[in-house]
Amino acid sequence: MLTLYDNLDSGNAYKVRLVLAHLGLPFTRVELDTDKGATRTPEYLAKNPNGKVPALELETGDVLWESNAILFYLAEGSTLLPEKALDRARVLQWMFFEQYSHEPYIAVSRHVLKHLELTDERRALVASKREPGYRALGVMEAHLTGRSFFVAEQFSIADVALYAYTHVAEEGGFELTDFSAVRSWLGCVSAQPGHVPITQG
Amino acid sequence: MLTLYDNLDSGNAYKVRLVLAHLGLPFTRVELDTDKGATRTPEYLAKNPNGKVPALELETGDVLWESNAILFYLAEGSTLLPEKALDRARVLQWMFFEQYSHEPYIAVSRHVLKHLELTDERRALVASKREPGYRALGVMEAHLTGRSFFVAEQFSIADVALYAYTHVAEEGGFELTDFSAVRSWLGCVSAQPGHVPITQG
Repeated sequence: MLTLYDNLDSGNAYKVRLVLAHLGLPFTRVELDTDKGATRTPEYLAKNPNGKVPALELETGDVLWESNAILFYLAEGSTLLPEKALDRARVLQWMFFEQYSHEPYIAVSRHVLKHLELTDERRALVASKREPGYRALGVMEAHLTGRSFFVAEQFSIADVALYAYTHVAEEGGFELTDFSAVRSWLGCVSAQPGHVPITQG
Repeated sequence: MLTLYDNLDSGNAYKVRLVLAHLGLPFTRVELDTDKGATRTPEYLAKNPNGKVPALELETGDVLWESNAILFYLAEGSTLLPEKALDRARVLQWMFFEQYSHEPYIAVSRHVLKHLELTDERRALVASKREPGYRALGVMEAHLTGRSFFVAEQFSIADVALYAYTHVAEEGGFELTDFSAVRSWLGCVSAQPGHVPITQG
């Protein structure tokens, strides 16, 4: 049985839950209170030395961390990862885009607004993330115009990775009104058979 | 012939040059002055809509961007990418770690200190990156203790990805004195046959 070290509010952890659901893989869920230091205990750091969720423990006892690496591992051999080398690289391209140019702005803004007391410093932090966050949404909008999915016109882990925080971008103060291709794509992703919402453990 | 959209001071672009050198693949280099907006022209945005270096143009005209996705594409089928599924996922795990938990602190500090006028605001920015940057180096140090390379005891693109900015971490104000396993590993990477320095175009 797979064990997922999880947090129900984390989009990064949700990516893994969503792929496990699509693949029909059973798993045990261990909920960690990330705001209370549960990912910084010696026991957890022995599993993921970077002290974050998610981490996936395999039946062998091996622990894999970094959400998008876990997605790649789970998806190999399934339709969630295209077969052609260039398509696979494009999936990774969008997943690295997600972690570098999207998540640090949209997910971090959401985390501050949902979970933390809004001090002046944090208000300034959120303000500084608006422009690059909207820029990331603009890159997605341009790419998705005329496309149903990010790569090779098939639903893949690139879509899962970008869906996780985009579908809750409004909780981070990002309005999607002007991003119609992004909104259509969000609808395509959530309409996939096997889809589960972020709140489902 | 491959075309690399490059910047000689960028560690992200250096990763690609280093892998191309290891694989013995010839390429044309197009140097872009990133500080002067050369990655934000309409011509370049048509190649990489995210407006960054590196990007690799294939002989087919397809353009791939995101340094670590390019590395994965180039390395498939070579010894720079292990064969076992779990090892490949671990390579990706360390590459995502590099882009999320290492580069935004160490590379960005280096960029500010090397290229920008040091205003109070930028001094505060660099100061805020010390603790997470050293934490990333600590995660690397613990993992490399007793190991020669990051994954499967073989030189892989995970090592290339992490070498790029770690070997110039001191330019970002990060002292490696207390990180002896990291320093040994840097030596192993630079001793690989086919190695080229960051300054070599």
